[in-house]
Amino acid sequence: MTSQDHVRNEIVALIDRKDLVTLKKYLQPWLPMDLAPLIADLPVEELAALFRVGSQELDATIFTYMPIEAQKKLLKMLTQDQAAALLNALPPDDRTAFLNELPLDVAMQMLAMLSPGERQVAQALLAYPEHSVGRMMTLDFVAVRPEWTVREALDYIREHGHDRETLNIVFAVDAGGHLIDDIRVRRFLLSPLDRPVSELLDGNYTMLAPTDDREKALQLFQKYDRVALPVTDESRKLIGIVTVDDMLDVASEEATEDIQKLGGSEALDEPYTTIALSRMVKKRASWLVVLFLGEMLTATAMSYFEDEIAKAVVLALFVPLVISSGGNAGSQAATLVIRALALGEFRLRDWWRVMKRELAAGTALGLILGLIGFLRIAIWSLFSDTYGPHWPLVASTVGLSLVGIVLWGSLMGSMLPLVLKRLGLDPATSSAPFVATLVDVTGLIIYFSVAYLIMRGTLL
Amino acid sequence: MTSQDHVRNEIVALIDRKDLVTLKKYLQPWLPMDLAPLIADLPVEELAALFRVGSQELDATIFTYMPIEAQKKLLKMLTQDQAAALLNALPPDDRTAFLNELPLDVAMQMLAMLSPGERQVAQALLAYPEHSVGRMMTLDFVAVRPEWTVREALDYIREHGHDRETLNIVFAVDAGGHLIDDIRVRRFLLSPLDRPVSELLDGNYTMLAPTDDREKALQLFQKYDRVALPVTDESRKLIGIVTVDDMLDVASEEATEDIQKLGGSEALDEPYTTIALSRMVKKRASWLVVLFLGEMLTATAMSYFEDEIAKAVVLALFVPLVISSGGNAGSQAATLVIRALALGEFRLRDWWRVMKRELAAGTALGLILGLIGFLRIAIWSLFSDTYGPHWPLVASTVGLSLVGIVLWGSLMGSMLPLVLKRLGLDPATSSAPFVATLVDVTGLIIYFSVAYLIMRGTLL
Repeated sequence: MTSQDHVRNEIVALIDRKDLVTLKKYLQPWLPMDLAPLIADLPVEELAALFRVGSQELDATIFTYMPIEAQKKLLKMLTQDQAAALLNALPPDDRTAFLNELPLDVAMQMLAMLSPGERQVAQALLAYPEHSVGRMMTLDFVAVRPEWTVREALDYIREHGHDRETLNIVFAVDAGGHLIDDIRVRRFLLSPLDRPVSELLDGNYTMLAPTDDREKALQLFQKYDRVALPVTDESRKLIGIVTVDDMLDVASEEATEDIQKLGGSEALDEPYTTIALSRMVKKRASWLVVLFLGEMLTATAMSYFEDEIAKAVVLALFVPLVISSGGNAGSQAATLVIRALALGEFRLRDWWRVMKRELAAGTALGLILGLIGFLRIAIWSLFSDTYGPHWPLVASTVGLSLVGIVLWGSLMGSMLPLVLKRLGLDPATSSAPFVATLVDVTGLIIYFSVAYLIMRGTLL
Repeated sequence: MTSQDHVRNEIVALIDRKDLVTLKKYLQPWLPMDLAPLIADLPVEELAALFRVGSQELDATIFTYMPIEAQKKLLKMLTQDQAAALLNALPPDDRTAFLNELPLDVAMQMLAMLSPGERQVAQALLAYPEHSVGRMMTLDFVAVRPEWTVREALDYIREHGHDRETLNIVFAVDAGGHLIDDIRVRRFLLSPLDRPVSELLDGNYTMLAPTDDREKALQLFQKYDRVALPVTDESRKLIGIVTVDDMLDVASEEATEDIQKLGGSEALDEPYTTIALSRMVKKRASWLVVLFLGEMLTATAMSYFEDEIAKAVVLALFVPLVISSGGNAGSQAATLVIRALALGEFRLRDWWRVMKRELAAGTALGLILGLIGFLRIAIWSLFSDTYGPHWPLVASTVGLSLVGIVLWGSLMGSMLPLVLKRLGLDPATSSAPFVATLVDVTGLIIYFSVAYLIMRGTLL
């Protein structure tokens, strides 16, 4: 039994004994993020009992760290009043994320439970597009006026800061609430108390719009090393903030999306271990079928060369080897270029620089593989008769077409993500399997054309 | 001309005119992270001139945001004294990262330029393994004693906090410097000034060891939503801190590594756009050659079926289609499992759950593709004679072997990362091309075995 099981059993025992005083004391030293995974798979009655014990604030925090399925189950078990209290106590950004996962009718019922003020906030946040900054922002920030002294600002913070998401960054606003600057709290801590806040400003700040994509927010956080960024409306009025802890989640989710697409399926948008099998099969099947239909062209292409294969069956032996090498080279190039694009290492207008690199790299890689292929057939033929008396022709065909196919694969792999991006599509769509499929078809044509040129009059 | 070019030209003009007073004023409103990319590709003489203008502190900050190549160039142009001043002013963690990129002899010369105190720090940090917490930590933290009042602590911070990396988290230590707790600065801001620091402690903290891998640090930051975490030695003495801004970089670098490996090359460890072509070819060639050698087994496998191909050339036509479908299914499964492993969604001992999922998903996907393959040949045969009078046998062979190969690919793709992890290797090594290559060879055997069973006595 692990220590986690032990803790869980202890909690269950206390709930069953209805010893709520001891339970409360037992839970006290736990951090919400440690407690949440422990209790997430408790039977739902016990989960609900547990949520009736803690303080409203603690309940709300634990709730935000629970997986969505447990959240849904739990909310169903609570009474109307309990559910309303919990929903009203949730931080606005976490509440937005939760409501977004619910069917529309349930979300509407939940909205109706909120106090008028909180409801207005929730509706405003939900109106922003998914994956936008507006969906992740919180309205609980601290704003001070530049005319105040540091002492006045600190007094204000002491009075009003309790329910604010972060005090690491304080914002300076004018009388109309328009953003003037952001101030790291260290400046307050390091300045004499009678200095005016205006002398703490450096005029250097970055802001987000609520409609910005979360990827843009991530890039700004990475560039400016901030722990929070302000969100402003069109008139530069400060309407919310985004904090860095959410950015670590965004970075992880965006990477997951890209990685899953690169592997040749749609992004699952749910954990692999818990997504319903039917939904997973659907997301994987769509791309597999597209790739399959594309790959059917290889059968068509091969049928054009049926006579050649019949005359020289030896040609067929190397088809998988030759075309897969093109696919592998293409996968490499596509992946490297897609990641470089995602990291903002170059722009579309630099495509020519990328192409030059891949021309050089593809040629070098093609020569390496072509030479190995040639030697493989040559050396084999010294000891066996598998490839017949015309083995030098076979070896040359394989070697030469490898040079062409690997070069071609590298070029296709590197240019395709750029073309997709130019068309406004996600470059990560040009996954390794997608590029491999494209290169397979063209690779066959290159291979059999080279064979025709080299073997005409002898084997063909 | 973009506005960036404009700014750069302005800076160059001021340097050329040696109008250093105006230059200094012109640079003043810029943030170091915005300035660094603008000036990184200036001619090195002008870069050096620029670095003689600014304050030592500003220079050091700009330096940390410049790419490594520009850093190296610049340092060569500075006088011994200037270089020493710059190196001594660098934050210890950024200095460690810079020294790490240099050849050993140059790094040693740089170390010799440091003041005895800074040298000791640098040597200690460099002694930790690459990608360890020790390499990224900074020693500039603020520690207070629990006996102090909030007022005393704030006074101490005001006096000693200026050169500290962050004041967002303050650490409580005992007389021996051992960590007692971490305290978010908000608690200081929200508490009455005469309260003792000991009443601000909640006993909940997480700490890192300097030898921990940076991935572990990233996971803790994600879990606990902190902006800084303490690093302690074996006796729990506080020796440094790691801050969240470095974690965004770690998240991005770790994702890049995984993505590049998944694409079938070694991790480049350098930006795609600036890595030397020879180094990139080397990193890509190694895996391409391994895959090529593996794929050679397809030629060997095919040669065993040479007689079958000679008798029924039609079989060869579908080889690329059939084996690539297995590879695609395998790529999908491998990528999903590798990402789920990286996110800690399941553990190795849950392999059976993964296998059950893939058995079900692989069968479903195989049936879908098998059916499409069967129909493709059947429908085609209604209108043409490409596949001869025995087309039902061909269609059955392709359809049935697709079911088997797609299922097999899904199983291989999902289990291989787990096997690699079990062996202590990086699961991301089982890249899409790697899995595809493995599945190609076994796929051929499945395909020709199914063909033999179905066509024996007729076509074969």
